[in-house]
Amino acid sequence: MAPLRALAYARQHRPRFLAELKDFVRFPSISSQPAHATDIKKCAVWLADHLRRIGLEGVKVIPTHGYPIVHAAWQRAPGAPTVLVYGHYDVLPADPLNEWRTPPFEPTVRGADLYGRGACDDKGQLFTHIKALESYLTSERALPVNVKCLFEGEEEVDSPNFAAFVAKHKHALSANAAVMSDTRMLAPDRPAIGYAERGTLRLELEVKGPRQDLHSGNFGGAVHNPLQALCEMIASLHDAGGRIAIPGLYDDVRTWSDKERAYMARTGPRDADILADAHVETGWGEEGYSLYERTTLRPALTLNGIVGGYQGSGVKAVIPARALAKLSFRLVPGQDPQTIARLFTGHIARITPPAVKSTVRVLSSAKPALLRRDHPSMRAAAFAYRKGFGSPPVFLRSGGAIPVVSTFQEILGIPTVLMGFGLPGDRIHAPNEKFHLPNFYNGIATCIWFLAAAAEKLRGVPNAREEADRSLAYGD
Amino acid sequence: MAPLRALAYARQHRPRFLAELKDFVRFPSISSQPAHATDIKKCAVWLADHLRRIGLEGVKVIPTHGYPIVHAAWQRAPGAPTVLVYGHYDVLPADPLNEWRTPPFEPTVRGADLYGRGACDDKGQLFTHIKALESYLTSERALPVNVKCLFEGEEEVDSPNFAAFVAKHKHALSANAAVMSDTRMLAPDRPAIGYAERGTLRLELEVKGPRQDLHSGNFGGAVHNPLQALCEMIASLHDAGGRIAIPGLYDDVRTWSDKERAYMARTGPRDADILADAHVETGWGEEGYSLYERTTLRPALTLNGIVGGYQGSGVKAVIPARALAKLSFRLVPGQDPQTIARLFTGHIARITPPAVKSTVRVLSSAKPALLRRDHPSMRAAAFAYRKGFGSPPVFLRSGGAIPVVSTFQEILGIPTVLMGFGLPGDRIHAPNEKFHLPNFYNGIATCIWFLAAAAEKLRGVPNAREEADRSLAYGD
Repeated sequence: MAPLRALAYARQHRPRFLAELKDFVRFPSISSQPAHATDIKKCAVWLADHLRRIGLEGVKVIPTHGYPIVHAAWQRAPGAPTVLVYGHYDVLPADPLNEWRTPPFEPTVRGADLYGRGACDDKGQLFTHIKALESYLTSERALPVNVKCLFEGEEEVDSPNFAAFVAKHKHALSANAAVMSDTRMLAPDRPAIGYAERGTLRLELEVKGPRQDLHSGNFGGAVHNPLQALCEMIASLHDAGGRIAIPGLYDDVRTWSDKERAYMARTGPRDADILADAHVETGWGEEGYSLYERTTLRPALTLNGIVGGYQGSGVKAVIPARALAKLSFRLVPGQDPQTIARLFTGHIARITPPAVKSTVRVLSSAKPALLRRDHPSMRAAAFAYRKGFGSPPVFLRSGGAIPVVSTFQEILGIPTVLMGFGLPGDRIHAPNEKFHLPNFYNGIATCIWFLAAAAEKLRGVPNAREEADRSLAYGD
Repeated sequence: MAPLRALAYARQHRPRFLAELKDFVRFPSISSQPAHATDIKKCAVWLADHLRRIGLEGVKVIPTHGYPIVHAAWQRAPGAPTVLVYGHYDVLPADPLNEWRTPPFEPTVRGADLYGRGACDDKGQLFTHIKALESYLTSERALPVNVKCLFEGEEEVDSPNFAAFVAKHKHALSANAAVMSDTRMLAPDRPAIGYAERGTLRLELEVKGPRQDLHSGNFGGAVHNPLQALCEMIASLHDAGGRIAIPGLYDDVRTWSDKERAYMARTGPRDADILADAHVETGWGEEGYSLYERTTLRPALTLNGIVGGYQGSGVKAVIPARALAKLSFRLVPGQDPQTIARLFTGHIARITPPAVKSTVRVLSSAKPALLRRDHPSMRAAAFAYRKGFGSPPVFLRSGGAIPVVSTFQEILGIPTVLMGFGLPGDRIHAPNEKFHLPNFYNGIATCIWFLAAAAEKLRGVPNAREEADRSLAYGD
């Protein structure tokens, strides 16, 4: 069953694969900026054309209320398991633009890396699956499993239309497992499979004071300043030890066994790794937990932005009429975004100073996700990594959220294999994002091996909704 | 000595005076936005042409390192006193533009008011002096005093070049008193003369954390957030009672006699007036002081703006690399801006959390100013108000800063009469700024009477530098 012809084909066509990936990265498919709507749609059409050219069937660009989902399939292996391949072709904004060494949408190879917005997150990683499918289909004229592909254009804005799409096409999308590559390895020779993601809850907190901006000379000292009130409220949301100071916030946070924490300490990044990755000298946060635990086992509340008062250059002596903060929670297994939203909203109402008014708006949320490390799809991925990278993977928790994991878990009843090929230094979401080209090529080989291994290991695995038995999820 | 012909002339030409003021307001002479550099220069040239046309001499548009100063004079009254007339032809930005009922630079009369950016601050008020000079010169062929005019184009950016200009031309600018109209009356029938201005100290506080923006999923809870640290630092700068919580900040603040406070309580705005003016329901600030006292006798620290993290629409899950706050102190007699800058900078260094770095930049400063209520120029202004508005003025303190007052006091040794014609509801610095037209016309009459009264009352008043005797400044 060794997919030797597919692997040889993939090795032979590396220069073309890289050229095609550069074409893909060239689209400024920024989903959070309406000005790029046309770019996203063009990118979807390009992707669909590409999927058709490599031999996939049923290729469609399916409209949603937001940006389209690109669908493709190959279902000519009756009796064989079905793998659902997920990825996203949208990217984050590239600002601050002046910090890029080469323009974000002019993909450029320097050394062994391809630089560009989306090179790693997620166009490059998504492309490893496409090139694996092409290599198999062209060299073998068939795949060892049935495949359904869903490539989304709204992942970076929290997939507002994806769950409804999956629910609507629940039966057509049935599969034995899903796979996606949108996470990180520990190092080029240390692969990793994600098995836990934090959830998110994104909020806006607006504080209003006077009806319009006031002259700070005339009124400074006599009228409360909504921007200052906002700072005071935000400052009170953490205690001096870095814990979130909202009553009840930790009530549903799960406590983990010593065995699980020992596994994490053995396999996960050390504090020094995380600090080096962030380019900071000092850690911060809740006492009694490693930095890896703080970013995975523990909830976090991050202030993502403040807009308030005069924003231009120079000075303008105003007491601003209003101020706005953008905040996001990261939630952990046990915590429910709706409950946390209620706690937050109630707490803010209680701490708002009487001289100003506050409003909380929930922008989006995603539940935390937890996967079984012993699922056959996980074993297939571990085997594929050993073949593709020469090393067995560790199982890692992640601090980020991939809402699609809980969507697939809850609606389709299948686990998602988080088979990432990114690296800690790839600067996703930041200037000079890159994708390590050896990971691109080894990633394609890993995806080829994964298809081969899934054909064996997923045979007989039910594709109905399986109850997530959390007490068994870690084998501890 | 009653200037009857000048007053009749002014009454007769009101429609033309209004049309000319509209032409003046039409220039978007925004000094804080480099894009308007040409507009400011055009406005200066228009103003100079206008001063030439009404018969003033030595009219010049004098370049500075920033925007030009427009100079004009009339010195054909040997032996008579000299009055220095000051005003500014630059304006603040008009944003937010969508809150204007009519465009800010298309001056429009509605009811008894002229709407437009700068209509009150300071083009309309400055114009009362120009029209008074025109009325005198045209109807009498002479002025009762010598006059020197200085109209500045950088007042709204804290006059960075004005003090050096005055120092350089110290002898040419010698006068017995200065007069300017850039302040407020209490109501259309309640004139007011300013005798105290707070000083300013404008600062930027920048906080830096990670080298670049980080993904808040991957690092949230493990890396300190400079924007959150900024909020924590700012929140700690006031205590729960609204006092500034920087050690030593109140050390040089002068304590006032019961007599002075009683005068203020009798003549100044009540709390309800100030709240109505600000369109807020609740006051804020230091216990033990009226709102009028809080904005004049007491220092204030106002957060004018914060720029930090993601500013666009929608969401971006980042821990920002840096955050910037714009802050301004209002300082009171006794306080020195340089001392306060040192106190603030030292305090910020002490409270900066170890996981981030902070920098304080001083942008500009102006000393507080205090004038003698019994100076002959003040008596001339009081007389002029009684004639122009039919009511005697009260003497008021102001919370704002007019740096030129201390410039004239320190360099030329002369007091500045703050003979304002604005009203509390004129919305200077805000959308829908307006100038009350009865105040425009009565203001012109008041300026005519001021010239006449100054000729008498300033005779024999020394124009050399007089030592500001603070203990005598209020007659208490």
